[in-house]
Order: sequence, then structure tokens, then C-alpha cells
Amino acid sequence: MRIDGEAYRTIWPVEDGAAVAIIDQTRLPHDFAIVHLTTLEETAHAIRAMLVRGAPLIGATAAYGVALAMRADPSDSGLETACATLLDTRPTAVNLRWALERMRDRLAAVPTAFRATAAMGDAAVIADEDVAINHGIGLHGATLIRAAARRKGTDEPVQVLTHCNAGWLATVDWGTALAPVYAAFDQGIPIHVWVDETRPRNQGASLTAWELGRHGVPHTVIADNVGGHLMQHGMVDLCIVGTDRTTATGDVCNKIGTYLKALAAFDNGVPFYVGLPSPTIDWGMSDGVREIPIEQRDGRELTHMTGRTADGRLETVQITPDGSAVANYGFDVTPARLVTGLITERGVCPASREGLLGLFPERR
Amino acid sequence: MRIDGEAYRTIWPVEDGAAVAIIDQTRLPHDFAIVHLTTLEETAHAIRAMLVRGAPLIGATAAYGVALAMRADPSDSGLETACATLLDTRPTAVNLRWALERMRDRLAAVPTAFRATAAMGDAAVIADEDVAINHGIGLHGATLIRAAARRKGTDEPVQVLTHCNAGWLATVDWGTALAPVYAAFDQGIPIHVWVDETRPRNQGASLTAWELGRHGVPHTVIADNVGGHLMQHGMVDLCIVGTDRTTATGDVCNKIGTYLKALAAFDNGVPFYVGLPSPTIDWGMSDGVREIPIEQRDGRELTHMTGRTADGRLETVQITPDGSAVANYGFDVTPARLVTGLITERGVCPASREGLLGLFPERR
Repeated sequence: MRIDGEAYRTIWPVEDGAAVAIIDQTRLPHDFAIVHLTTLEETAHAIRAMLVRGAPLIGATAAYGVALAMRADPSDSGLETACATLLDTRPTAVNLRWALERMRDRLAAVPTAFRATAAMGDAAVIADEDVAINHGIGLHGATLIRAAARRKGTDEPVQVLTHCNAGWLATVDWGTALAPVYAAFDQGIPIHVWVDETRPRNQGASLTAWELGRHGVPHTVIADNVGGHLMQHGMVDLCIVGTDRTTATGDVCNKIGTYLKALAAFDNGVPFYVGLPSPTIDWGMSDGVREIPIEQRDGRELTHMTGRTADGRLETVQITPDGSAVANYGFDVTPARLVTGLITERGVCPASREGLLGLFPERR
Repeated sequence: MRIDGEAYRTIWPVEDGAAVAIIDQTRLPHDFAIVHLTTLEETAHAIRAMLVRGAPLIGATAAYGVALAMRADPSDSGLETACATLLDTRPTAVNLRWALERMRDRLAAVPTAFRATAAMGDAAVIADEDVAINHGIGLHGATLIRAAARRKGTDEPVQVLTHCNAGWLATVDWGTALAPVYAAFDQGIPIHVWVDETRPRNQGASLTAWELGRHGVPHTVIADNVGGHLMQHGMVDLCIVGTDRTTATGDVCNKIGTYLKALAAFDNGVPFYVGLPSPTIDWGMSDGVREIPIEQRDGRELTHMTGRTADGRLETVQITPDGSAVANYGFDVTPARLVTGLITERGVCPASREGLLGLFPERR
């Protein structure tokens, strides 16, 4: 997507493959800083310290991390060390494990003298595949937005509500939930996005607002509490969110609070869609609420907040009383019955086993 | 209620009626500071700058402000000036207008020589009436919590979820939504409160958490996004919230986000109650979503956040990108169909016209 008119991805090779460039997302939205990674250790740090985040981007970054490691030590033990070091940065990230296993399987068959070059090529393929999937989601989702524009029959923008950041910053490009928004915007469909702040990590207020703004997409940041009121008053035409994990039956595990927006959408007859790259479908799971374990994260995400002071410094402040306990559940599960449709790279389908198998018949 | 063992109200006369003491709520939860108001101007400032907030407390403070004004100028014009000055601090606050009209009507009939003393007495009556109403809500609501404890049949605490601050800090004492919690806790019923942070002003994370903690009530602060997940997993036994305005049909206008919690409670069979002082019932209104205008507040409440730095200073930081629009709706309306019951000072009733008229037959 574009940053003030210039096209970017979230990760790209530089210096003839001697380094990989990323955007330091910990400094957004207040600073736009590009960081060059040149070693395995720098890459592991970038993932661990969340300079990069979002499942698809973590996977692509890890793949490039293996490639950088192969420049220093292309031996079998070097390959094992690289994969183990990178896997250890976010042990529960499914995409990370998948990307590392693919890199290791592919590179194990390559003579050491060619591994660095082959690895850089393989990493680029992983990144390009992510872009292709998300572009597909964008094109299929844009048809839904175009249909909403047609239903409105006015020049008023289509009002989309999204939660968290499932934008291009979470992927290599396009995003998942926001890919349809970018595709529709680039096709000239009038559109406006309500951006949930997304407490406690504020990925909506910081990342989604920033990336939409830089690309030029009209948007308004709202507290997570506001969406129900907007839907009661006809101010949302459709919701589009991302997903971290989707069951074979269409239950959607996404950022905490997604379920509340789905309830409000259902109560007000607002279509609720999920941008779903097929690699995040868990074909072995059928009851999301019962089966998906929900991670509890560091309470400090809730008790403290970082922002920019009036004199331009980044500062962290405590916002809860000393001595009050906090609980920080990272995700919730939206039952399929509340989901209007899943927007995959192969098309849009109902949130059901039959719906998904219709698009992915090889899983029957 | 108690602050670390000592009983407090949010407002009380001191210095033989020459001053009124309040808690400066803008400095909570990080500083507990008592401020003495001695003049009309100081009182108006305390309301305008939100040192005191919450409809019942604003009304009581204004009444005491009139009393302080009468010490300086008990003339008819002094009375008019006092009422006009105080009304101007929060022109849309219903309780404020009600308290001032009552003070003016009462004092107009009193000879000027006795007005200062009479006014201090009248203000005390307004304060005491608020305490009595809330205590009634507390006792009636505690029976619901006791019933929930009995249903659980274990020693596990009853899990209550609340939104915003409808605690004693918003009233003269007891609170509305939290009155049942304090009454149950003081009766020895094991209880734990999930405290919604309540963006964007964070009254839950700052005020509710602080007052529960000082009184000794076990509680946990959560992001506004979390309640649905907790209810899906049986971790909430009942919800109790406050209300700013309730229609004669039982629709509840309360802090933005209340509607989302009511949807989640309904979806999961969790009882959803509203602590309702009868003066906030709008007997002339029957469709809350259509008829109640929703105030938009300063966007800075969303874009900026104040807290305590590591070295103990209060600091304000910006948390959204420059150039992103924000919208800050203050309230939403929860339709009566989602409300299990209304807890009034006269008892608990269904959220319906018949339910309310059963408790308030004089309104038939």
C-alpha cells in the first residue's frame, strides 16, 4: 500500500540481499522509521520486540531471518540454529512455525554453497504468496463493498467498521480485513472506515488509523464501546474484521472484542464479514468457543499506555490504581451463527463447514 | 463508603457550614485529595472542571453551592445569580437543574436573614435523600446477589460485571450500580467485580477500581472488549450497570458501550440489571433509541490519555496519529428487551412500562 503516495511493503530485501528492511511498528503512529536487519539475532529481536507483528508478517520475517542466517553459516547446524532461534521468539505463532518448517525442508536439500541465495528466493516466495492471497481477499471483498454502495444508491460513502489491525501492516501487503477496503478505495468506490481503538494494545487507534491515513482512506477512530450505537443508528453498512484462527465450521477467533461487534451487527441486521486467508483455517477444529485456548497477556498492556507528550517525547503512563488486579485476555471467539460470510482468496462463502468446503473441496 | 477503613461521603459540610469538603476526583486514582469549597465561584469551578461528577453528586454539590452563596449574599438577586451561575456549569445535567430549582423555590420563601442557615439544611436534605435512595437500591440489589450466591452453591464469589462508574463517587454515598455490590459485600456475601475500563474517559479503570479497592471489594480491571468472552465462559453471574436516563418503557441510556454488554449478557443467559434511582426515569419518553439525543464529547478524551509516569508525575500523552478524525459519542441506549430487571429504591421490577408502574403506581 502507499505511504503518502509512495508504494511500500512491510518487509523487503535491500543491499543485494545482505539485509532486509522493515518498518519499526513499535514507533507508529508517531514515528515512521525503517530498520535494516542484517543478522539472525537482529531478526529474532525484531519479532520478539514486536517491531513486526501480525501472523503473516511474522512468518515472512522469519523466512527472511533464515536467509540472513544462511549468509553467515549455511551449514546444517546453522540452519537448525536459525530455525530454533526464530521459533523461540513467538512459540505459539502458527504462521511462524509453518514458514520455518517450509524454509528448513526446502533448504535441507540445497547444497550449502547455494543456501544463502536459495533462502533469499524462498523467503521472497513466501512473502509474494502472502501478497497474492491478500490481494485475492481484497478483490473478492471489494465486490461486497461495491454491492453495498449500489444498495445505498447515493454518493454517500460506504461505512465500514473494523476492529484491531488486520491491515497491510499485519501482512506483507494489502492486509486481510482491510484488503477489501484498499481494493474498493483504489477502484474509486466512496468509502469511510470506523476504526475501533482496540484496547488494550490500541492497534486500531495506532496502526489501522495510521495506515489508512497514509494511503488516503477516510476514517474515524472510535472507542471500542461505540460500534453498537453506530449500528443502532444505521451508521455502519458492513463490518469487516480479521481472524487469527477459524474453525472448519466457521467460528472465528480474533482480537478480543470482535464477538461484541458481531452481536451488535446481528442485532441490527448489519452484515459481518471476516477477511480470511485460508492458511489460518484450522480444519481439525469444530467448536471455537470450547476448543480454542485464549491466551492471557501481560497486564501491563492494560495498566500502562504509551503516547507522545506535548513536547514530542514518547512517554509511558500508568492509568489504573496501584493494587487493582487486571486480566488481559487477548482474543475471543465469534460463533459462526453471527458471521455473514468469510472472504477468502478463493471467494466469499457462508461461515459453515459446507460453505468452506465449497471453496476448498480438496478438504472434503 | 469506606476509604481504607474510614467512612466517607463524596461531599460534606465542614467549618460549621462555612465550607463544604469534596474529593477532587480529577486526581484519582493516583492522588486522594480533599478540597474545601467556600464560595459560589469555587463550587461552580468544581462542577465545571469535574472535580465532582455523576448526576446525583453534581446536584448535591450545586445545592451546597447555593448555601455557600447565601452566606455572602442572601438577597433575591444573590439567589438568582447563584442558581444561574451553577446551572451554567453543566447546562444539560438534569439533576443539577432539579436541585437548583428546588433550592430556589424553597429559599425564595425564607427571609434573607435565615437563608444561609436554611440553605445549608436544604442542601443536606438533598444529599441525604440521595443516600437513602441509593441505600434502598443497595438493599434490593443485594437480594439478587444473595440469590446468585445461593444458585452457585459454592464458596466461590459471585461474579458481577459493571461498566463505567456508577459507584459512590458518582453519588453522595453508596452509588447506584455499585450499591448492591457494597451492600452484599458488607453482608458478607463473597463477591468479585469485573471492572470495565470504560473508554474513553476510563472511569472504570480509574474511579470504580479505586473505590472498590479502598472499600476492600475484590475486583479485576478488564478492557471493555473482554466482557463477552467472560460471559461465553460462565465467568459472569450477573451484570449491574447504572443509567443516566431511563424511559417509561425501560430503555436505558447509559455510558457508551453498555448496549454491547447487554447483548453479550442476553446471548449467554446472564442476568443484566440496572441500578435505577427513580428520579432518572423520564416518564414522558417511550422509545430510547429513537428519542434520546446522544451527546458527542470532546475528541481529546479519545486522542489523549493522562496517567502517572514512572517518576510519579501526572502526564498526558497523545495516542492517535496526527490527522486521524475521531468521534466520541458519550452514551448509548440499551433496549428494554435486553434488560432483566431494574433495581430501584422501591424494589426490583421488569424493564417495562407495566413493571415500572407496578412500583410507581402514582404515575399511572
